[in-house]
Amino acid sequence: MRYKVTVAYDGSNYNGWQTQLSGNSIQNVIEAVLSQICAEKITIVASGRTDKGVHALGQVFHFDTERNLTNEKWQYVLNTKLPHDIRIIKVEQVEETFHARFSACKKTYRYIFSNDLLNPFTYQHKTLIKAIVDIEKMQEVANIFIGEHDFTSFCSSKIDERKPRVKTIYSISVEQINNDIILTFSGNGFLRYMVRMLSQVILEVGKNTLTKEEVKKMLVAKDKHCNRFKAESNGLYLVSVEY
Amino acid sequence: MRYKVTVAYDGSNYNGWQTQLSGNSIQNVIEAVLSQICAEKITIVASGRTDKGVHALGQVFHFDTERNLTNEKWQYVLNTKLPHDIRIIKVEQVEETFHARFSACKKTYRYIFSNDLLNPFTYQHKTLIKAIVDIEKMQEVANIFIGEHDFTSFCSSKIDERKPRVKTIYSISVEQINNDIILTFSGNGFLRYMVRMLSQVILEVGKNTLTKEEVKKMLVAKDKHCNRFKAESNGLYLVSVEY
Repeated sequence: MRYKVTVAYDGSNYNGWQTQLSGNSIQNVIEAVLSQICAEKITIVASGRTDKGVHALGQVFHFDTERNLTNEKWQYVLNTKLPHDIRIIKVEQVEETFHARFSACKKTYRYIFSNDLLNPFTYQHKTLIKAIVDIEKMQEVANIFIGEHDFTSFCSSKIDERKPRVKTIYSISVEQINNDIILTFSGNGFLRYMVRMLSQVILEVGKNTLTKEEVKKMLVAKDKHCNRFKAESNGLYLVSVEY
Repeated sequence: MRYKVTVAYDGSNYNGWQTQLSGNSIQNVIEAVLSQICAEKITIVASGRTDKGVHALGQVFHFDTERNLTNEKWQYVLNTKLPHDIRIIKVEQVEETFHARFSACKKTYRYIFSNDLLNPFTYQHKTLIKAIVDIEKMQEVANIFIGEHDFTSFCSSKIDERKPRVKTIYSISVEQINNDIILTFSGNGFLRYMVRMLSQVILEVGKNTLTKEEVKKMLVAKDKHCNRFKAESNGLYLVSVEY
């Protein structure tokens, strides 16, 4: 049987999603628990990796096993055995043709900046900023990125040169809710560091340290050396993956 | 000069407020930073201790030093040097007669239970419960404790026998906000474990595992052996201290 699992996690205490030799990745922890439950070595396949410190509200992975439990029983047993900062939101038995990575058609990420500097509880979950920013300007520059673009200027310089850098962003919203500035990105896929780079660039425009025209030039340049802005990992959330 | 300082902290990573030989108490951390800034050994005096895992939104302490900075400068320098989970909210120069512990006339604590079981971000800041509870019953039993009472039945059994156990509670409110059940206690002082014990007893009544009559008997008994309920430390917050 193949199972599709939706999982939320606080990435603060892990070295990211992907299996590490050190063992302290979210994938490591989930695979260890699943292997124990199934009494066989289980490998899970996620919609994509998340970096060290990045969180998820709705990451999706799949796995195969002969072990037959109801969806509810899987969720219950997993949540009993997993640490509290990894919570299984949903388990669904799916067709063998379902693939967490290749079947994904839409992903949504959120980035949270906060000027709530005196709050001791949220520093691992929001990126603190001191500046007062112009939300309208941020939304305006964000709109530049909507549609199909080559995002070479806004991704990790370590990505394989042969890998396509063209992605389609469906929407970006910029909202201020109390002390938080929340950027929500939906698209058909995102390159490594892309959301963090776009978030910081959008913030810089809100702070008046970059102009909309400069950002347009950066996008058109398709040059991995032209952007030096990247927001910290701790403000980033993988919100959902749609199939 | 004597300074009064209001501080918020996330207690998750500390062994409580009070100085420990291990060095990992909130008092230890603050004293180390103050001693560095003042270039002399500084000892701070708090309104009271908080136990391991307990948080504060408005703990108050005082300290004396010859070092003369403006209130704003103190706050800025302290927050620059302290870890992010300890934040200085306010610094005020006060008279030498001010004493953080003896001058306190009212304290407010909050206890948060939550049935948001699938949230991976808040397990260190709220106590998770699975039961559906009756908020009205909780408020009703909470009202029993309002006024002046001997709280021997609801405090640590390790408290010095000669210490008075009579405290006055001014108010207790029980509210449900989304997935959270929030109990707020104000009084002239609280014994060790008192808020955690009262919170769990009030919750048990909401769960129908204790009756209001049983709780009344426990209070009247003034017997440290008659209550076995105590909520976990991680849901407790020292909200404010008034002078």
